[in-house]
Amino acid sequence: MGSFKYPMKFCSTCSAPVTVKVPLGDNRPRAVCDACGAIHYDNPKVVVGCLVVAGSSVLLCRRGIDPRSGFWTLPAGYLEKGETTEQGAVRETWEEARARVDIDSLYTIFDLPYISQIYMFYRARLRDGRFSAGEETVEARVFVERDIPWGELAFPVVDRTLEHYFRDRRNDEFPIRSESIKKRPIRRQP
Amino acid sequence: MGSFKYPMKFCSTCSAPVTVKVPLGDNRPRAVCDACGAIHYDNPKVVVGCLVVAGSSVLLCRRGIDPRSGFWTLPAGYLEKGETTEQGAVRETWEEARARVDIDSLYTIFDLPYISQIYMFYRARLRDGRFSAGEETVEARVFVERDIPWGELAFPVVDRTLEHYFRDRRNDEFPIRSESIKKRPIRRQP
Repeated sequence: MGSFKYPMKFCSTCSAPVTVKVPLGDNRPRAVCDACGAIHYDNPKVVVGCLVVAGSSVLLCRRGIDPRSGFWTLPAGYLEKGETTEQGAVRETWEEARARVDIDSLYTIFDLPYISQIYMFYRARLRDGRFSAGEETVEARVFVERDIPWGELAFPVVDRTLEHYFRDRRNDEFPIRSESIKKRPIRRQP
Repeated sequence: MGSFKYPMKFCSTCSAPVTVKVPLGDNRPRAVCDACGAIHYDNPKVVVGCLVVAGSSVLLCRRGIDPRSGFWTLPAGYLEKGETTEQGAVRETWEEARARVDIDSLYTIFDLPYISQIYMFYRARLRDGRFSAGEETVEARVFVERDIPWGELAFPVVDRTLEHYFRDRRNDEFPIRSESIKKRPIRRQP
C-alpha cells in the first residue's frame, strides 16, 4: 500500500532527493540518500484475518471499499507493528465484522509475490453469535456451504481458504496449508 | 531494520516535515504529511530461511555481523518484494551459506511482536553436498544432533526450529509449526 501509492522521492531522514541504485555490498536497487547515506528498504507486507466458523456456517463480509468493492471476503487486513499475527487477525475481525472470536489455529498461508504480500488466515469460532458490518464493510453475513457466493468472492485467497475448509471439515482435520498464488488472476470487474 | 535505523522525519513523497498522528478514520498513529496528505505506513517485516538437512546433519552459519556476531544461526534474511517466501529462503541460503537446496516444505513460523518480525523456516535438502561461508557468515558447518552448539545459538527461533526438528525426526513427520515468542529473551553477550 505505502510504496504503491507513495513512491519514495525524498529521503525521509534528511529530506534530500533519493537515488534508486544498488548499495555497496547489496544486490538489488534501493532508494539511497546521497546526502545522509540512509538506505531505505521496502519489504513485503503481511495481511492477517480469520475464517470465522459459527456452527455449520462461515462469516463473510461484503467489501465497501476498493479494490473489489461489493465482493465478499474474509475479515482481514494489514498486520501492525507490535502485534502477533493472531492478535492482528482478531483485531481485523472486530474492525471489519464486529465479531469477537476465539482462535483455534493458524490455517492457510499464501504467498502473493505479484503484489508483495503474504496472507495468513486463522480458524476461529464466533464467541457470542454477534456480528455486524464494521469499517470498510457494507454487509456481514454467515453462509452455509451450499450458499457460498463463489462467483462473488473478492480474492483468490478467499476462494482457496474456503475450498480447503469445506474439504478438511469432512475429516475434521485442519493442517496448516501453505501455497503460492503466482500470477495475477483475471477477475471480473464488480 | 529501515524504520529502526532511520525514523521518518520528512515526507518521502514531497519532502515536507511529517507529523505523527492518528489519521481520520484510522486508530493508530502514523507519519502523516500535512503538506501533501500522504500517510506513511510502517509494517512488520518477514524473515525467511532454511533448515538445511544433509544426511543426519543440519547446516549452521556462524554470524559475522551484529546482532549476535560469532553465534550460530540458520541461513535467513529479509524477504524481498516480488519473491515468494520459498524463493527468499532459497536465496538467503545461497547468500549466507553458498548452499544450493531443494525445498521440502514450510516448517516453522514465529511471531516476534517485540521486534515486529515474522520468521518462516523451510525444511530443505542440500543438493550437492557443497557449502561455504557466504556474505555475513564467518563459518558454515554441518552438525549432527549431539554436536549442536546449543549454548552458542544466535536467536530463540533457531533453538526452537532445531528442537522441533530433532523431535519430529524420530517420527519422520514434520507438520508446520506456528508459535509466538512474546518477550525479548535475555541472552548472553557474545
